[in-house]
Amino acid sequence: MERISIEVYEIVSHVLTLGFAAMGAALLYFILTKNDNSPKYRPSSVLSVVVMVSAFLLLFLQYLSWSDAYVLSATNDAYVLAEETRLFSNGYRYLNWLIDVPMLLIQILFVAGITGAAFTKYLRNFAVTGVLMILTGYVGQFYEPGRANENVTLWLLWGFISTVFYIFVLVYITRVIKEGSANMKKSKGRPIFEFILPLFYVAWTIYPVAYVMPAFIEQLGYGTAIASQQVLYTVADISSKVIYGVLLNIVSTILSKEEGYEGA
Amino acid sequence: MERISIEVYEIVSHVLTLGFAAMGAALLYFILTKNDNSPKYRPSSVLSVVVMVSAFLLLFLQYLSWSDAYVLSATNDAYVLAEETRLFSNGYRYLNWLIDVPMLLIQILFVAGITGAAFTKYLRNFAVTGVLMILTGYVGQFYEPGRANENVTLWLLWGFISTVFYIFVLVYITRVIKEGSANMKKSKGRPIFEFILPLFYVAWTIYPVAYVMPAFIEQLGYGTAIASQQVLYTVADISSKVIYGVLLNIVSTILSKEEGYEGA
Repeated sequence: MERISIEVYEIVSHVLTLGFAAMGAALLYFILTKNDNSPKYRPSSVLSVVVMVSAFLLLFLQYLSWSDAYVLSATNDAYVLAEETRLFSNGYRYLNWLIDVPMLLIQILFVAGITGAAFTKYLRNFAVTGVLMILTGYVGQFYEPGRANENVTLWLLWGFISTVFYIFVLVYITRVIKEGSANMKKSKGRPIFEFILPLFYVAWTIYPVAYVMPAFIEQLGYGTAIASQQVLYTVADISSKVIYGVLLNIVSTILSKEEGYEGA
Repeated sequence: MERISIEVYEIVSHVLTLGFAAMGAALLYFILTKNDNSPKYRPSSVLSVVVMVSAFLLLFLQYLSWSDAYVLSATNDAYVLAEETRLFSNGYRYLNWLIDVPMLLIQILFVAGITGAAFTKYLRNFAVTGVLMILTGYVGQFYEPGRANENVTLWLLWGFISTVFYIFVLVYITRVIKEGSANMKKSKGRPIFEFILPLFYVAWTIYPVAYVMPAFIEQLGYGTAIASQQVLYTVADISSKVIYGVLLNIVSTILSKEEGYEGA
């Protein structure tokens, strides 16, 4: 934690910048394409906008937090923990996910055409399991290897509890995508919508993988472990928020056209 | 790296400022002119907006990174690496290009009138070769002359691999512009659209030239080499993103009018 290579310092800076630039750019995309969709699909775009704003702010803060923590060593050949500084922390991410996760899960309901009592049921299930998944993971990361109060047992226990909620999320999202797919049987948007299922499984599963990266601090060294973790988080963030939202938007635009919507 | 002239310090500050100011200004241009184009051409404007936002953020960070790295020397006649600072790094650019390059390549498909299976094929080819071109260049720049772990062989090898992908990009873009030109045979926009081909060749080829500038550190001195590199990157950024996008927008507006679109 006290000394990392120039490459590790730079790779983390670069990928955090990629992260917030992607969120900022996609924010404008979702605002500018919202009215290509008929009113019933627009809540999905609005929720993408909500996610982009909160993820942009969070990732920008992560970037500042990283930059503030380290300075070039006196010998100019490594980065070292700055004096009178603050530690880099992933905890920002978790509390940001309290906003993002329910929004991401709920936005797909509008595109899948789920309404009435089923909508309310999924909304409640997604909100409850999503929030519990995040809060338990948040508690867990305070014990991760490399921290002053490292406790591997508690870290893995809370991570395990969080993963149980994650499995519920996967069960619900699989049902939602199957139901949505049935609702758009005759639409050209159907294959794109169905592609969201494997994307979701891969993108969201990167998060628990990133959570366990600190387990490899001894094998990889602190720098490599933390850089891998940040790269994984960024790939997961861009896939699960931006690419996911863009696909939902494209499907919404196709459905809107097929249903006779002319655009505004 | 430790000591650069006042002129070099200032020129780099100035051109980075020119860069992000151009992106910020063009951002508003693309937003405000989007609805001069009929809906089928608007995705090109939206993708220009996406590129402007991400390039603006990146170039603003590059500017801050440059400003933070250097301070006036004790004798007031040069700039020297500040104490407890972070090194200036071009790596931000590369990861930002992961966003920009696919967007720039895809946006022209909407103006060229390429649809259906051909659209999907080009989209995939552009995305894959563009991303591989950037990632291999990103790996390469970690070995560039002047860095702590300088390795000229690896630097040139990765640069070469990146250039191979670049040649594929040039082949695809040439085809797209030829097909687009055939699609707008009777349009007044055709000569403007065709001008994009030489612009693209010149603007995009500046990037590999900028990549090899650190080779001349011994002949030119570190300061002049790095200043030339930043000037080249800025000229390339403005040409390949702003001027390119403006030309696509003008062609879209002409085509929209010729096709009877009245404006919104």
